[in-house]
Amino acid sequence: MRGVMMHAPGDFRVEERADPAILKPTDAVIRLTATCVCGSDLWPYRGAEPIDGPAPIGHEYVGIVEEVGSDVKAVKPGQFVVGGFSASDNTCEICRAGYQTSCVQREWMNSMGAQAERLRVPLADGTLVATPGMPDDDLIPSLLTASDVLATGWFAAVAAQAGPGKTVAVVGDGAVGLLGVLAARQLGAERIIAMSRHESRQKLALDFGATDIVAERGDDGIERIKELTGGFGTHSVIEAVGTQESMLQAIRSIRPGGHVGYVGVAHDVTLDGQELFFSHAHLHGGPAPVRRFLPQLIDLIWNRRIAPGRVFDLTLPLDQAPEAYRAMDTRQAIKALLRP
Amino acid sequence: MRGVMMHAPGDFRVEERADPAILKPTDAVIRLTATCVCGSDLWPYRGAEPIDGPAPIGHEYVGIVEEVGSDVKAVKPGQFVVGGFSASDNTCEICRAGYQTSCVQREWMNSMGAQAERLRVPLADGTLVATPGMPDDDLIPSLLTASDVLATGWFAAVAAQAGPGKTVAVVGDGAVGLLGVLAARQLGAERIIAMSRHESRQKLALDFGATDIVAERGDDGIERIKELTGGFGTHSVIEAVGTQESMLQAIRSIRPGGHVGYVGVAHDVTLDGQELFFSHAHLHGGPAPVRRFLPQLIDLIWNRRIAPGRVFDLTLPLDQAPEAYRAMDTRQAIKALLRP
Repeated sequence: MRGVMMHAPGDFRVEERADPAILKPTDAVIRLTATCVCGSDLWPYRGAEPIDGPAPIGHEYVGIVEEVGSDVKAVKPGQFVVGGFSASDNTCEICRAGYQTSCVQREWMNSMGAQAERLRVPLADGTLVATPGMPDDDLIPSLLTASDVLATGWFAAVAAQAGPGKTVAVVGDGAVGLLGVLAARQLGAERIIAMSRHESRQKLALDFGATDIVAERGDDGIERIKELTGGFGTHSVIEAVGTQESMLQAIRSIRPGGHVGYVGVAHDVTLDGQELFFSHAHLHGGPAPVRRFLPQLIDLIWNRRIAPGRVFDLTLPLDQAPEAYRAMDTRQAIKALLRP
Repeated sequence: MRGVMMHAPGDFRVEERADPAILKPTDAVIRLTATCVCGSDLWPYRGAEPIDGPAPIGHEYVGIVEEVGSDVKAVKPGQFVVGGFSASDNTCEICRAGYQTSCVQREWMNSMGAQAERLRVPLADGTLVATPGMPDDDLIPSLLTASDVLATGWFAAVAAQAGPGKTVAVVGDGAVGLLGVLAARQLGAERIIAMSRHESRQKLALDFGATDIVAERGDDGIERIKELTGGFGTHSVIEAVGTQESMLQAIRSIRPGGHVGYVGVAHDVTLDGQELFFSHAHLHGGPAPVRRFLPQLIDLIWNRRIAPGRVFDLTLPLDQAPEAYRAMDTRQAIKALLRP
């Protein structure tokens, strides 16, 4: 089959790879209907994360089950399924508490390489969720977002305790930040301030439910958030970047007692204990437990109550994956969908 | 009047100071029945915090109201009162959310110097809580703990979401850590693991409700906590020290999705963003909003349901404050009460 392989920063190629097979009785193999490039894939692409290559990549996927191992009960061949970016048993104590991305049996899907034609999914029963039937083609992009970016924005909004009566600031205007806006709206937040300097992203943020746009960054951005919130800062902040600057933006935009939900994969971030102490912030985040939210998110998409697939502003055949990376790296595209 | 003055690290003296007076119509002046030395007072004593001296010190106090300003309505001369280590209006949006130590009008009591015979308390209506009557003498130490260490341990336990079904680890065996044990017990925690190497403190922790003692520290301590919790770590950790080592102990002892409540005043603590991200911990803490908990804590003490005053293992007249500092600095005393 064909799949993306990382060779070196900036050198990602579509090559022939071995077809995946059932290795354990809990595995499934799915034929991918769609996959995509994640903001976090740009870290190795930009050389900010080491590449032990050539290695496969990709962790967002929807598709049709082709084969299952003998222990798989919850999904069967022919079903359309969505799975998260890590495999989980969904039965251990950590999964049952809602933290499937810290499952005792966790496997990162990235190492399976979801930017490909087919994919082996470990722990299929605890990882995959089948849709009620075969989806209409226009639902595919939205269902694909549930695999990571929608669920990640949703987790951030939940971690930030976005809800009725709350003012929420969203740091980051990538797909996750934009879907954080959508999630905050769905969760009933009163006011949603999207931080973005890019007109097309501002527009999508407003379509997803943002009530205010703040284009300023750094100290000016914090000042503007304070002005909009009676000097207090927001009740909630969704942090969806993962840099030192974005984390400080989040912590300094929150009011005492407020909640920061951070989901940008932290790179070279160090937090000063004393600043955190006196901020009185709640801090929670990490890799989103996609599996916790999948049934609810699939239901919202299936019933056309949300259209998160709008974050895809570029669709390419799998063979043009290098172009998808280039477009996202240069921020020409918010998010690129790949059709195997 | 007599009061403690900081001159230099290790050089704290009891001297004659000007009597406090009503400066604003919202002030009260109280005659102190008891005050004490806080673990955080040891930071400047040890030279770990700069001293702009000579300067007064002390922020824990109970006493009898002598005089109130014209706007004070909630307390009156002759009443016995307890107040927190910061003054707050208790009416602003931040106070109403329960974060009185971040009140928009906050004043730190330390600068008023509560280790003295008398004390000016700003914003008396929002800071002080009167007891139902004049307390029996044996209740004084317990009421004094409500001014800081009990409320701080309680806030940490609340921030750590200690409660029924939860396993709680307590990092730090000073007065705050020990009263964190007591708070976790009162909040209904199922299992409370006190981390302590000191026999007398271990004993008090057990008396306050600890179910397990872990004497190991660092990686060995984390290993031991994991062993006691099925390999997962605890649901809750109370951090009551404020050093790099203690914060890492806390974050590494928690299970994914667990809650760290940290109240040790952070000194030279830096947290690695990536470690925090993948820990899936909830982090919350800061200066305890004593005022939020005072009515409940006074009630528990008044009705003799808790005896937090047991943390005082040394009682001295105010004039012997230097000896109180020495005893706490060398860990000969857990906490020293001063009688003006």
